[in-house]
Amino acid sequence: MEKDRLSKQLEFILEIDKEKEILRQSHKTGGERENDAEHAWHMAIMIYLLREYANDEFDLPKAMVMALIHDIVEIDAGDTYAYDTEGHKTRKAREDAAAERIFGLLPEDQRDNLHSLFDEFEEGESPEARFVRAMDNLQPIMLNNFHNGADWKRHGITKTQVVGRQKRTEPGSRMLWNYIKGLIDENVKKGNIIDE
Amino acid sequence: MEKDRLSKQLEFILEIDKEKEILRQSHKTGGERENDAEHAWHMAIMIYLLREYANDEFDLPKAMVMALIHDIVEIDAGDTYAYDTEGHKTRKAREDAAAERIFGLLPEDQRDNLHSLFDEFEEGESPEARFVRAMDNLQPIMLNNFHNGADWKRHGITKTQVVGRQKRTEPGSRMLWNYIKGLIDENVKKGNIIDE
Repeated sequence: MEKDRLSKQLEFILEIDKEKEILRQSHKTGGERENDAEHAWHMAIMIYLLREYANDEFDLPKAMVMALIHDIVEIDAGDTYAYDTEGHKTRKAREDAAAERIFGLLPEDQRDNLHSLFDEFEEGESPEARFVRAMDNLQPIMLNNFHNGADWKRHGITKTQVVGRQKRTEPGSRMLWNYIKGLIDENVKKGNIIDE
Repeated sequence: MEKDRLSKQLEFILEIDKEKEILRQSHKTGGERENDAEHAWHMAIMIYLLREYANDEFDLPKAMVMALIHDIVEIDAGDTYAYDTEGHKTRKAREDAAAERIFGLLPEDQRDNLHSLFDEFEEGESPEARFVRAMDNLQPIMLNNFHNGADWKRHGITKTQVVGRQKRTEPGSRMLWNYIKGLIDENVKKGNIIDE
């Protein structure tokens, strides 16, 4: 039985290699589009280094694993851009089917564990999910700010949209939300974000 | 003072974005060369899923952070291919200078913490370092096996070289070392690895 368990684990590990092909709208400091695996790697380090700013105590390894696996469903469901309102209508159904298939490659105990971490992230209520979501928001803002708001400008994004997207940041970290508010205001002043 | 601390942390976080540009010799299942950030993301998930096979109990978040940051020095020092013996003569000096500069961007407590995790990984003695090194070895073997040994064939790698490189696997996990030995033998049989 031991070997069968290991085979399932290794099949899952090889399958998720595909996450490295799922491109996001964010651009890396080097200029190319970022992929989901790079984004998740960045977020996991941010969770570790910025954990002192979380509103509430949280379980560090749980939050890190949640960040590392939160986009795995996009292997089947694709990346839905934060400001794509049409795409978001079908996102949940597409991602739930993906979670069934991909986490289903694992032995049952690990399948249930990762699937429930993914659901918990989506619900966004636990201390871990709230802090991971704050990182999920802060990370692309940092890249976009580095590129002088190129992605916001390209998509014609408004301040209402950015602030709306960031509604998931304050529940995770008031301190980092204050920092982000300052970044948004700077980018509005520069004309990188449209102020209606 | 709070703001100054956060600025240092965010400067480091933006700086390490460059790790996404450091290409390895391994090729992803999609066919392109893998970068260090993708490799580290993959390893951190492997640590979580395969931890039951570690020879010794280890601290999970410590091992995950160690994996996530173990290649950051390559932003300055570049990737040294496992079988590049000339490159390995200067590797340590190049990587130590890189660690000073890059971890030095952080506030002192976090600088010392990440620098010591990096040193501990390099020494390879602690239970965490031994298991992280086993993952560092298993992950590229899985990709290379997926591509029917293309990277071994391209570089004309011998069984002695592969087994030598894998000497860091058994101290982390005898169970996974047994699995890898089987993979190596299969690839020798297929002619993907040269048997002298």
